[in-house]
Amino acid sequence: MRAARMYGYKQPLRLEDIPIPEIGPDEVLVKVGAAGMCRTDFQLLDGYFRSSLDLPFPATPGHEVSGWIEKMGSAVPKDLGLAEGDLVVVEGCWGDALCRQCHEGNEQICAHGSWAGFGPHGGYAEYMPVKAKHVIRVAQGELTPEMLAPLTDAGLTPYRGMKKLAKAGVLGPGRTVAVMGVGGLGAYGVQYAKLLSGGALVVALGRSDDKLDLAVRNGADHTINIADKSVDQVRSELEQLTGRPEVDGIIDCVGAEETIRLGFGLLATEGAFVSVGLVGNRIDIPLFPFVAREQSYHGSFWGNYNDLTEVIALAERGLIKHSIHKVAFDDINQSLERLGRGDFLGRAVIVYD
Amino acid sequence: MRAARMYGYKQPLRLEDIPIPEIGPDEVLVKVGAAGMCRTDFQLLDGYFRSSLDLPFPATPGHEVSGWIEKMGSAVPKDLGLAEGDLVVVEGCWGDALCRQCHEGNEQICAHGSWAGFGPHGGYAEYMPVKAKHVIRVAQGELTPEMLAPLTDAGLTPYRGMKKLAKAGVLGPGRTVAVMGVGGLGAYGVQYAKLLSGGALVVALGRSDDKLDLAVRNGADHTINIADKSVDQVRSELEQLTGRPEVDGIIDCVGAEETIRLGFGLLATEGAFVSVGLVGNRIDIPLFPFVAREQSYHGSFWGNYNDLTEVIALAERGLIKHSIHKVAFDDINQSLERLGRGDFLGRAVIVYD
Amino acid sequence: MRAARMYGYKQPLRLEDIPIPEIGPDEVLVKVGAAGMCRTDFQLLDGYFRSSLDLPFPATPGHEVSGWIEKMGSAVPKDLGLAEGDLVVVEGCWGDALCRQCHEGNEQICAHGSWAGFGPHGGYAEYMPVKAKHVIRVAQGELTPEMLAPLTDAGLTPYRGMKKLAKAGVLGPGRTVAVMGVGGLGAYGVQYAKLLSGGALVVALGRSDDKLDLAVRNGADHTINIADKSVDQVRSELEQLTGRPEVDGIIDCVGAEETIRLGFGLLATEGAFVSVGLVGNRIDIPLFPFVAREQSYHGSFWGNYNDLTEVIALAERGLIKHSIHKVAFDDINQSLERLGRGDFLGRAVIVYD
Amino acid sequence: MRAARMYGYKQPLRLEDIPIPEIGPDEVLVKVGAAGMCRTDFQLLDGYFRSSLDLPFPATPGHEVSGWIEKMGSAVPKDLGLAEGDLVVVEGCWGDALCRQCHEGNEQICAHGSWAGFGPHGGYAEYMPVKAKHVIRVAQGELTPEMLAPLTDAGLTPYRGMKKLAKAGVLGPGRTVAVMGVGGLGAYGVQYAKLLSGGALVVALGRSDDKLDLAVRNGADHTINIADKSVDQVRSELEQLTGRPEVDGIIDCVGAEETIRLGFGLLATEGAFVSVGLVGNRIDIPLFPFVAREQSYHGSFWGNYNDLTEVIALAERGLIKHSIHKVAFDDINQSLERLGRGDFLGRAVIVYD
Repeated sequence: MRAARMYGYKQPLRLEDIPIPEIGPDEVLVKVGAAGMCRTDFQLLDGYFRSSLDLPFPATPGHEVSGWIEKMGSAVPKDLGLAEGDLVVVEGCWGDALCRQCHEGNEQICAHGSWAGFGPHGGYAEYMPVKAKHVIRVAQGELTPEMLAPLTDAGLTPYRGMKKLAKAGVLGPGRTVAVMGVGGLGAYGVQYAKLLSGGALVVALGRSDDKLDLAVRNGADHTINIADKSVDQVRSELEQLTGRPEVDGIIDCVGAEETIRLGFGLLATEGAFVSVGLVGNRIDIPLFPFVAREQSYHGSFWGNYNDLTEVIALAERGLIKHSIHKVAFDDINQSLERLGRGDFLGRAVIVYD
Repeated sequence: MRAARMYGYKQPLRLEDIPIPEIGPDEVLVKVGAAGMCRTDFQLLDGYFRSSLDLPFPATPGHEVSGWIEKMGSAVPKDLGLAEGDLVVVEGCWGDALCRQCHEGNEQICAHGSWAGFGPHGGYAEYMPVKAKHVIRVAQGELTPEMLAPLTDAGLTPYRGMKKLAKAGVLGPGRTVAVMGVGGLGAYGVQYAKLLSGGALVVALGRSDDKLDLAVRNGADHTINIADKSVDQVRSELEQLTGRPEVDGIIDCVGAEETIRLGFGLLATEGAFVSVGLVGNRIDIPLFPFVAREQSYHGSFWGNYNDLTEVIALAERGLIKHSIHKVAFDDINQSLERLGRGDFLGRAVIVYD
Repeated sequence: MRAARMYGYKQPLRLEDIPIPEIGPDEVLVKVGAAGMCRTDFQLLDGYFRSSLDLPFPATPGHEVSGWIEKMGSAVPKDLGLAEGDLVVVEGCWGDALCRQCHEGNEQICAHGSWAGFGPHGGYAEYMPVKAKHVIRVAQGELTPEMLAPLTDAGLTPYRGMKKLAKAGVLGPGRTVAVMGVGGLGAYGVQYAKLLSGGALVVALGRSDDKLDLAVRNGADHTINIADKSVDQVRSELEQLTGRPEVDGIIDCVGAEETIRLGFGLLATEGAFVSVGLVGNRIDIPLFPFVAREQSYHGSFWGNYNDLTEVIALAERGLIKHSIHKVAFDDINQSLERLGRGDFLGRAVIVYD
Repeated sequence: MRAARMYGYKQPLRLEDIPIPEIGPDEVLVKVGAAGMCRTDFQLLDGYFRSSLDLPFPATPGHEVSGWIEKMGSAVPKDLGLAEGDLVVVEGCWGDALCRQCHEGNEQICAHGSWAGFGPHGGYAEYMPVKAKHVIRVAQGELTPEMLAPLTDAGLTPYRGMKKLAKAGVLGPGRTVAVMGVGGLGAYGVQYAKLLSGGALVVALGRSDDKLDLAVRNGADHTINIADKSVDQVRSELEQLTGRPEVDGIIDCVGAEETIRLGFGLLATEGAFVSVGLVGNRIDIPLFPFVAREQSYHGSFWGNYNDLTEVIALAERGLIKHSIHKVAFDDINQSLERLGRGDFLGRAVIVYD
């Protein structure tokens, strides 16, 4: 099978032809229909996770995977209701099933966990072995693998983040929620802001007019192009658009130091800020307003099994808009470079023919 | 009456003899029995709040007040059940009663609010007019004004913070909760950690062995003197004491950049950090672990009416230990200097004779 | 002014001409534009609240009121930003401002509270005095008093109930939420189920096909006419419509013993049931499934100030559909009888000319 | 090995000698040190669960088990850190690992789950095979199997219930929490009320003075013997003891129709009631106060893995008092009869020699 593999940091992937992997008794072999390309893949190659992740080479990246079950291991539980030919998505976060977090269902933050495409086989290859319990069957219908693949991270991560804003009590009528960054994750984030905020105003903040236009098509009530603007300028633009210079909830799909600082500059009393983006390295904000206004700040990482079933449920009801940019296998390395520059409008997805 | 009043920043209070203030129809006149001295009072004089607070001079500080009702205004609601001679505490955060926050009972974070002793009359004077709805009656018994006064801020602020840790779900059996700073607020914080954590281990972190000894008497299971220690050293000491190098919840009663950084260096996956202390100016911590471990960070400011009734309920049942350092009116300025240096063991309280 | 007043139980209201009431210094006089008629008004006359409410006669009912400020008391706080001529709604639940509930903002459940039209002046009269703090200004625009009046109870009560379902964690993608009763409250309930459920399926259950048709226009995905059907029949119909014989959340706008029993017969594991309707007198359901499936049951009563501002915010954004049946002052008694029979499609509203 | 097995409803267990069961590759064989006897075992034999549970005969009851690992299956995950000779408790609720509930860690309410001793092998036998992932290792120390066994249900179920009261926001200083029933579960319930209520008053309600005395030794601040007393009598006794005729939270370890009715007769505005007991069949309470006072009612069933680790953590710290009544294997049938009559003071535990 074709596979794009990593042999070291800061070098291109090697596009190779290798044997289809064997599967264990509790695994299925997924014939990959589509694999989303994530800015994190660019960061992986660039060494961002070097200190936190012990990566054996060669490694096949690709943590956003959808496809069909090609083969089933001998001990796959019948209760899972899986069969060869099923359209599935791969839940990419695999915990040790022992710790407190796993016993809450939060395998994505298991201290001893692993992640598809970050060591274990990923979807930058035509076939991928996965534990049967980590695939979720999708109803046959309008949904294609290229729509589904990005839902397992780009479409999942802001969903979990938005649930954290909901739990923090900052959504609802009369409130304003901002989505910072309207690229891969933010394009979904805006939709969840609309779907889950119970009538709040949704404002998208970004640096590209094209992406902000897409945000409007995805449901944003207002957009602000924040490029080269001060916090005060953004506040004043916000006030013109919404009647208030502040917002009650923010999901930051970027994670640069400036977006975090801008976000807290816009956040209202009792407001909540959720970080899902990881472009930068530090949080650096003033202490006094954070305390005196009783704001809260929440890290949110990827999503768990139930989160993903909820996202798939939305997609099956046709409630998610997909903005996909198809990438051919041979163009993977060029596409990774474009990802690093944030050049794609919509999600880049490798599609196997 | 005697009053210690502020005529400008960075100058001593003037100890004066002035007329007893008039009260409005919905106010009571409190004969001050005791007024707690807070590090915030030192900061007030030093100009920390200069940009966020428009202070008219002369101003009488003192936001931790307990005493007796001397006189009642003509329109004080009967339902309040107040009478002359009642022992009371003053709830010091007064909102506009109009906004979302006030309608939730969180007057302390009202954008148009005021605070006893930060503009309005405070307790650095023998008498103080207060709206009747902002005094809470205390059952006559063992409790004296000097025990009660500090409960309205030093004893209230960490209580609210600890409730935020509880709500974040990080307390309970098998967990560890850390209290950073064991001075004015922390001496109470340790007690709430014990009372409200449902069997969690309580670890006090501080820089003074005397204060850490007090923390043990107040219920800490373990203490660590963090002076001149690296994060790794503290983690390793923690592991020796508790079996784990991490903690699940932290309340920071200091608020220096270093304590915040240390705290996040100790915080476990899904851990929650609450800031109540305000010594420093910035939050500066790494982004990746905060997101990837799904931690949360909560600002907590003073406390609301219901919080204070709960603290008083604890005190009335004898469940709070008081560490009071009595200060005479004439020694106020020297005591403020000691506060700035963090020199007091226990809470400094002005007591009128 | 014209007023419809109650002189005793189980007798028609007397339609009288009486002087316009005086207002106190902290009150405003509202010129009533519209007053919603609630099934509770029928129950009030019928004696349902006789044991829990000490009603002085003559009493003017009417707790759903919208109109214009005619006159302002001398001591109305400037901060409220009110002026003569303002379009307002009346928040009808008035607490003692002293208890725990009032300090949380939940005046509607204050043990010493009163309610507009249940003792104090109500909207079955052309003018009504109200404490200024209990009116909420509405932006001038499309909204008329007859649209606004019902929002203060029929449109508020299921809103609060739906928030309780959200807080119970049973809404969201992949879930089903049922609204039982599609009359005065349910017509709004269905809309909130859609607006606040984040993509859940919404099923309306009722006994009148006309009302169920209205429910569809208000956003219900499916409807079931439950008249003369067993629990099993409803379960099976539900399964045909949604793929599951159960629902995750229920708001019961009826409150008859049978609707409660039916509801728990449909409720899934971990499901939540909220009662807002009060037609019957008892809850009588089996214990074992409630415990073994860890269900929860929540009473929800009217709504508080913040709830009402949120409902008004939805209405101002045009997100609420109004189904109003205008009633002339002279027809009040006949309309109360129709209310007792549940005969209105949409909310009956008294409109003054 | 000796085993006490059930061959049909309403007949004594047969005490037999049978072969030690084989274990599967992912199982361990537990040498049973102690098996708690639960009133539910009496109900199981009596047929209470007949309609909800398909029981194959012969069946070995016993769902409260502690002992030592005698043998390990060939495929037990190393990560579990288990070894032969380890002291363990058995987590007795086993889900399908597929559904929403299991993915939240709530295997005890899995619709396709099974329960130790309710079909699968239980602890009324000297050896018991269990999936390795369902045993929890206990630190060697003061704790004996007879202390540990009851913690897996009698000591677990009220713990989970008390957490639900905490989450409902009704615990804390100034509040009163009542434990109804002070037998097997209630003896622990009183302790958790003390440990987890953050300074609330704890009142134990029961019908046996001996058990109420035990409740006092376990931490109850007050007790009321409710035998033959009306709701009003209990309210008035409560007022004498605590100053209020009502309580804010109730955990009902009985579950008779009368205890539920009494409980709601004592419950304050915004109060929460948790049912863990299952003696009766119906919930039958008035609707109006439940709604108008915004009370909530929560079913709570057994406990999940994390709950049990928390209970064990409390026990390992010496924070749980054990009241054990040892039963010899040969006396099992007589003891079941005593259980049916509620005759034991403390938990009956079968101890193998």
